[in-house]
Amino acid sequence: MSQYRTFTAAEAVEYAQRFGGLSDASSLVKAEEVGDGNLNLVFKIFDRDGISRVVVKQALPYVRCVGETWPLTLDRARLEAETLVEHYRLCPQHTVKVLHYDAELAVMVMEDLSSHRIWRGELAQGRDYPQATRQLGEYLAQTLFHTSDFYLHPHEKKARVIRFTNPEMCEITEDLFFTDPYENHPRNDYPAQLEADVAELRRDERLRNEVAGLKHRFFSHAEAHLHGDIHSGSVFVAEGSLKAIDAEFGYFGPVGFDVGTALGNLLLNYCALPGLLATREAADGREQRLQDVRTLWLTFAERFQALAAEKSRDRTLAWSGYVDAYLKKVFADSIGYCGSELIRRTVGMSHVADLETIKDEAMRIDCIRHALSLGKTLIVAAPHIDTVDTLIARIRQNG
Amino acid sequence: MSQYRTFTAAEAVEYAQRFGGLSDASSLVKAEEVGDGNLNLVFKIFDRDGISRVVVKQALPYVRCVGETWPLTLDRARLEAETLVEHYRLCPQHTVKVLHYDAELAVMVMEDLSSHRIWRGELAQGRDYPQATRQLGEYLAQTLFHTSDFYLHPHEKKARVIRFTNPEMCEITEDLFFTDPYENHPRNDYPAQLEADVAELRRDERLRNEVAGLKHRFFSHAEAHLHGDIHSGSVFVAEGSLKAIDAEFGYFGPVGFDVGTALGNLLLNYCALPGLLATREAADGREQRLQDVRTLWLTFAERFQALAAEKSRDRTLAWSGYVDAYLKKVFADSIGYCGSELIRRTVGMSHVADLETIKDEAMRIDCIRHALSLGKTLIVAAPHIDTVDTLIARIRQNG
Repeated sequence: MSQYRTFTAAEAVEYAQRFGGLSDASSLVKAEEVGDGNLNLVFKIFDRDGISRVVVKQALPYVRCVGETWPLTLDRARLEAETLVEHYRLCPQHTVKVLHYDAELAVMVMEDLSSHRIWRGELAQGRDYPQATRQLGEYLAQTLFHTSDFYLHPHEKKARVIRFTNPEMCEITEDLFFTDPYENHPRNDYPAQLEADVAELRRDERLRNEVAGLKHRFFSHAEAHLHGDIHSGSVFVAEGSLKAIDAEFGYFGPVGFDVGTALGNLLLNYCALPGLLATREAADGREQRLQDVRTLWLTFAERFQALAAEKSRDRTLAWSGYVDAYLKKVFADSIGYCGSELIRRTVGMSHVADLETIKDEAMRIDCIRHALSLGKTLIVAAPHIDTVDTLIARIRQNG
Repeated sequence: MSQYRTFTAAEAVEYAQRFGGLSDASSLVKAEEVGDGNLNLVFKIFDRDGISRVVVKQALPYVRCVGETWPLTLDRARLEAETLVEHYRLCPQHTVKVLHYDAELAVMVMEDLSSHRIWRGELAQGRDYPQATRQLGEYLAQTLFHTSDFYLHPHEKKARVIRFTNPEMCEITEDLFFTDPYENHPRNDYPAQLEADVAELRRDERLRNEVAGLKHRFFSHAEAHLHGDIHSGSVFVAEGSLKAIDAEFGYFGPVGFDVGTALGNLLLNYCALPGLLATREAADGREQRLQDVRTLWLTFAERFQALAAEKSRDRTLAWSGYVDAYLKKVFADSIGYCGSELIRRTVGMSHVADLETIKDEAMRIDCIRHALSLGKTLIVAAPHIDTVDTLIARIRQNG
């Protein structure tokens, strides 16, 4: 890492000229730092006509929103780039294209997606992309099936588990998802009005048993090469198009974690909509989110099932009754991880714009409380929910 | 591996003189090759008085019983030595002591255990070692707890998963345990009289779904650092003493695999006893095996539970209700893996002396058929058996 230095805007432009793969590279003239995440510098690189042409992303050696007191490995830039390259190989239509990366500088150059918008913002404004959930289900099925034991040779799988071992980023998830919200932890961050609800999380035995199981499986179940952070802020959408970005949490973990994170962010939006839109629009949006939950799961499960039937290398796992049984377990896991996403986004350190941007304070508290309560319900009910219709019924019952 | 050469007896003596850690090393004069396994040379090294003082074990670059057409990695010698060193650190009273190892020569020098006997032989002759199952339960609890996510820091755990990645030895288990017996495979080896029973294995949907789940968890669930092959031929016993040996299959896998392999070998003996001993002795021996099953599981579970309460590093997993829930899953896994051990030892390539040494052919076929049938029953019933008493009742029902 001896060559590492943090890029200035001018250096980002120069780097994009060299490695952006553009035939008119010299036309790149300006960089704008647009990173709104917690961990990285992100430069959009513009040409003379003011058109953004490529993106340069560089990992910082610390957690940006906390500062240099929370150091963080630069190896995550390699892990992110290699995860995206691998997912692009498996599902090019729904993965951002990496044009170049350099492990020492912890930097990568990616295709520009200015024609797209971050899905979270669109969802919060009630803008619907009718293909998005189907496309996200397709992305999850393609990337997770093709990196699972159904498909990979065991030697290749084991080599990849090693290559994508990601201790520091996994630790963030281990702590922020599964530990902090269920303890009295200084990193937690929630409105004072929710103190009683949060205290209840620490006392609920069934809940804590289930959360322990989710954490244990996150630690130990190397089922497939996950994106690891596939929330609606890691997804770009445009009309008919969807692209996953931001894969620095990529590692081999439980398939239900990726599916559950995606479902959880649909439900965070579901809980937030009454605070974001007028009554009628909010009601329509919520119905749409429930349909999105259905579409996302069914697309994922049907595509995974079809890929297993067509392309499984392992003859034992390919047995069709087993694929069904496995997907039932993945469904239960997904509901559990979905619930833990709802709780960690309301009680834990890292919040979502859907809820944070609700202007009316009482309404915001109500929506946050709803998300927290729904998360709890889903974690405890997860082992007992068999179908996506039952899941949707449980979500409706919860309010 | 450039220095690798297969040891002659004289070279084994010389090696033991240099690395056996004996103060009277020059008194070592003779080596006897005693390897009865499939994969290695094993030399007992004797002194001038004809007393065996240390053991030299060298991995061969192929499967011994098949020949040079089935090559096998020499890295297993490192994996075995490092697994034994680690397990000795965690449970010195029940692990053979490694005195020296050399990865390039694929060789290790171990303490001599001539005062002990292989447990399988003792079980087959109806000789009971009253402490053995309790001690084996202790070994399993100590080694598996201290290498699990309950105890290890996640960074350390991930580093060890990498270090103990064991693709070639795992592949043997993946094939011989979970694939071959359920297919028409040339490696299978069973009496012609069992053709119909074996054909039924290939048609039984519930069985094949469960076996697929066992295989999938063997592939992907890195719960703890397993011995990986803890059958009664990998265990030395003496009065009041038990020592695990032969850990070349060591890797991070599902805890239930080790527990199930141990249980399975008690039950292989249970099935074989009517062919090995007189009626009354056989009946007593079988009762003792059922008590052994109970003692092994209860010792393992109680010790694991106690260690989790005392020494868990992870506060989330340490939640007592979760330890119970986890041990329930381990129990179900153990019964399933136990069943798969019964089947792979009767239908698959690798057999056990308990059954093979039954002289009366009709009786031998009956005993083998019983083991096969019990294996099937246990695999299918595993998810529904909640207590060790229920397990024992199911074993009795099966005959």
